[in-house]
Amino acid sequence: MSSTQDIDALIDMMAKLPGLGPRSARRAVLHLIRKRALLLTPLADIMQTVAATARECLNCGNIGTADICDICTANKRANGELCVVEDVSDLWAMERSGVFHGRYHVLGGTLSALDAIGPQELRIPRLIDRIATEDVTEVILALNATIDGQTTSHYIADQLEGRVQLTSLAQGVPIGGELDYLDDGTITAAMLARKKL
Amino acid sequence: MSSTQDIDALIDMMAKLPGLGPRSARRAVLHLIRKRALLLTPLADIMQTVAATARECLNCGNIGTADICDICTANKRANGELCVVEDVSDLWAMERSGVFHGRYHVLGGTLSALDAIGPQELRIPRLIDRIATEDVTEVILALNATIDGQTTSHYIADQLEGRVQLTSLAQGVPIGGELDYLDDGTITAAMLARKKL
Repeated sequence: MSSTQDIDALIDMMAKLPGLGPRSARRAVLHLIRKRALLLTPLADIMQTVAATARECLNCGNIGTADICDICTANKRANGELCVVEDVSDLWAMERSGVFHGRYHVLGGTLSALDAIGPQELRIPRLIDRIATEDVTEVILALNATIDGQTTSHYIADQLEGRVQLTSLAQGVPIGGELDYLDDGTITAAMLARKKL
Repeated sequence: MSSTQDIDALIDMMAKLPGLGPRSARRAVLHLIRKRALLLTPLADIMQTVAATARECLNCGNIGTADICDICTANKRANGELCVVEDVSDLWAMERSGVFHGRYHVLGGTLSALDAIGPQELRIPRLIDRIATEDVTEVILALNATIDGQTTSHYIADQLEGRVQLTSLAQGVPIGGELDYLDDGTITAAMLARKKL
């Protein structure tokens, strides 16, 4: 069917997005076509805009629409705290919590011998530069609690030791978590880091 | 963060698509931004094209890019068989199977007293017109095997009785289906419609 090739192409492209497969892509495209004026056209427009304007912050790796992102340019966020995360999605998660008021450094992944990702492939040299040039008093290592995340965390800690105060996120029972459903590692970490009431 | 409002708007719009939620929309948008030239720009372009060209076939209700769709205009599909389906997604599913070589009629839903959907809200009058004007020898009622689908099927059968040969899809054990996982209704239908070997 030649005249539906654009629709087919749209379905194929949508099906490649993480979290969507062929079936959900077809449903999404039908939904978009039905709500053309309300959804499809505005979505296409905003995608054009984002494609034209989105860029990585040259300083921290966050995604924004300027060479230096909003967080890096906000004076009130220059409180000396620098939170190191793996990915922009982690930065977004941290911002949603609203608990952190300093700046970020997005590594862009984790060290991985298997995938040949060394410090140069990540934003680690830039992190070391920032410690030297910005007024950083504390580096909070907020990498994921996975093997690769913790390996990367240890590597960065080695590099920065003695130059700045290093902290990491507390490990323990998640809020709302039930002991019966937690893995042994989490229970062990929570027990070892138990607090006085 | 004012300068990321386009990205936030894009995430919000993606999160409204069926099958996506806020988390998967964020993942999809990050993925799109990272593969901007390869994915985001082409996706925006094709959405613009589809928004400008996609329309419902005036004859059968299929979605295509012309007033009359490819299937309705293809002479070789005028074999007298007309397959009635609820939705364009059902037409697509039927086309993927490759088993049917006639034409379609997309109702655009099912009759529903609860949602005040009567024959006029569906493409049922148009179906009756088509039986009268096109050279239709057999109407295959391929509505979903749900209560609403079957109610609609019975209604259409009543309307068309005596005017054209009516058939419906066989019901039974799906290919690859295990009896232990099938509902009682399916097993009953399969037993009652058992075939001689």
